[in-house]
Amino acid sequence: MSIILGIDPGSRLTGYGVIEQQGRKFTYLGSGCIKAIASGDDLAGRLQTIFAGVSEIILQFNPDMFAIEQVFMGVNPGGALKLGQARGAAIVAATSNGLTIAEYSARQIKQSVVGTGGADKAQVQHMVKTILKLPVSPQADAADALAVALCHGHSYDSLLKMSGQVKKTVRGRLR
Amino acid sequence: MSIILGIDPGSRLTGYGVIEQQGRKFTYLGSGCIKAIASGDDLAGRLQTIFAGVSEIILQFNPDMFAIEQVFMGVNPGGALKLGQARGAAIVAATSNGLTIAEYSARQIKQSVVGTGGADKAQVQHMVKTILKLPVSPQADAADALAVALCHGHSYDSLLKMSGQVKKTVRGRLR
Repeated sequence: MSIILGIDPGSRLTGYGVIEQQGRKFTYLGSGCIKAIASGDDLAGRLQTIFAGVSEIILQFNPDMFAIEQVFMGVNPGGALKLGQARGAAIVAATSNGLTIAEYSARQIKQSVVGTGGADKAQVQHMVKTILKLPVSPQADAADALAVALCHGHSYDSLLKMSGQVKKTVRGRLR
Repeated sequence: MSIILGIDPGSRLTGYGVIEQQGRKFTYLGSGCIKAIASGDDLAGRLQTIFAGVSEIILQFNPDMFAIEQVFMGVNPGGALKLGQARGAAIVAATSNGLTIAEYSARQIKQSVVGTGGADKAQVQHMVKTILKLPVSPQADAADALAVALCHGHSYDSLLKMSGQVKKTVRGRLR
């Protein structure tokens, strides 16, 4: 059994999703959205909201692994800087709590969850709802975060690659 | 008397400089470079090195204020993302220790330290050495970090703008 925290960071909204993996079985534990935008335009306040929010989720769910989406580079430098700052705040919340970070491309995540790398957001939401047997589709940011967590759970290759780096033991039987 | 920590963040090297301000007088307390590059190519390791490094400097010097250079946007999205992640890690190390963040443009820093916004790196290094009565010029990243700390010390306007946000009292007489 292992607990996976997926994060979809953004300078305004940061989605999170927590699942439990037992072999091939995934159980939904929680998901939601950290609203950095609620701290107004203050950069430091927004980043602190993300850092404190992710830290609190880690305290609450005690995950074994932290998975995050690799960033699509086709954004402008200003957008990339803002996203980078949000990512940096989220990642150090995890590393300072002793978690190892796994990164996946959007294509890998869609391939893993929907079965095709070109899936759209609605398909991802639908498959996340189906796989985790949720009564309703999760909100978009939370769905993306749950999708990256599921991708990590599915990803035997990625775990092999990270062997030796994983600080906490993943005890489940892996696909 | 107040202690100012200046940071010049980068995904490879993060310069830091610490000064003490008493009225118009500045005293050098320390400076150096956090070498995230020593963690290899691992993103999480690099960001954790920056976060832990800045946290340690804060513990050692107990600064009242944290000053950082605003980022020049003329970089490519990939570079902006990397720089953003490093900035995010450095900033949350400060905010999670209760520090307020002040940002200054490169032009403001050069104007404040050298007297002209178009000054080059060598002029900044020379003036930092002169103002702080250092026996030798500090290394480039450390000089930039000391310059942003000096800019903050000089900047009466910035403190006025931040009034109400400053969590720790700045007790010195300000220029």
